[in-house]
Amino acid sequence: MTGLFCEELVRQVRAHDVYGLWDGKPDAALLAPFIVDKKTVPLIGDPDPAVLTRISQFYGAVALAIEKRSGIMAAPVLQISGEGFGRAVLIAGRLVVVSRTLRDVHRFGFASLEKLESAGATLVDGGLSWIEKFKQAATAD
Amino acid sequence: MTGLFCEELVRQVRAHDVYGLWDGKPDAALLAPFIVDKKTVPLIGDPDPAVLTRISQFYGAVALAIEKRSGIMAAPVLQISGEGFGRAVLIAGRLVVVSRTLRDVHRFGFASLEKLESAGATLVDGGLSWIEKFKQAATAD
Repeated sequence: MTGLFCEELVRQVRAHDVYGLWDGKPDAALLAPFIVDKKTVPLIGDPDPAVLTRISQFYGAVALAIEKRSGIMAAPVLQISGEGFGRAVLIAGRLVVVSRTLRDVHRFGFASLEKLESAGATLVDGGLSWIEKFKQAATAD
Repeated sequence: MTGLFCEELVRQVRAHDVYGLWDGKPDAALLAPFIVDKKTVPLIGDPDPAVLTRISQFYGAVALAIEKRSGIMAAPVLQISGEGFGRAVLIAGRLVVVSRTLRDVHRFGFASLEKLESAGATLVDGGLSWIEKFKQAATAD
């Protein structure tokens, strides 16, 4: 395990695992699909539904980590086109705490566990600093 | 024509009309697909792509009307599932200016032109009042 963000992500994956397919499998096995050699994934056809699930789990983990550290709930909104373009935003109250343009969704993934951890942690830290800056908007509804 | 919002929506539809299919057709004909008798639309299968286009045009028109009156650009992010549920948000800077849960997307539409106009105008007014309340967040990036 490489850090707090990966731990949160593992919890997300296990929470989605309603059929218990991942029961008894180690955390490293759950995170393996997030590690991608981008050169080996073709940008052809619609993105694989499994990729969309991983994107949703990744941003879900960012949202939960933000909630744990700020006490403020953030909800992901993901817009992804069939061509693999899109946008991921996390919304707390009236505040956009995370906003990312998605490109080459087919190849969503990270070169290593360390890169996965640091990408997630960066989004969490960024989100927390936006909440600090615009606390009122983040708690408005 | 029933009001400023419908005029904006007509401009949106004509702007999307890259093949000129709507050239020479009156505005009322462009707006007709937005008027829906919900009882006649079954909630079966994936939502029709034409419905998704209309949802995108409707929120696009809300965004443009907000921009015209506030000078602040808003971008739509639409998350719609195959089952016809979803969420529509308009984002200006770091502010969520419009946020709507979508249900029964298959049946997206309005009972009359007056209802269409007032639904759009309500979202525009709501968005403008959020911008007024959180101007700093709306202009942050």
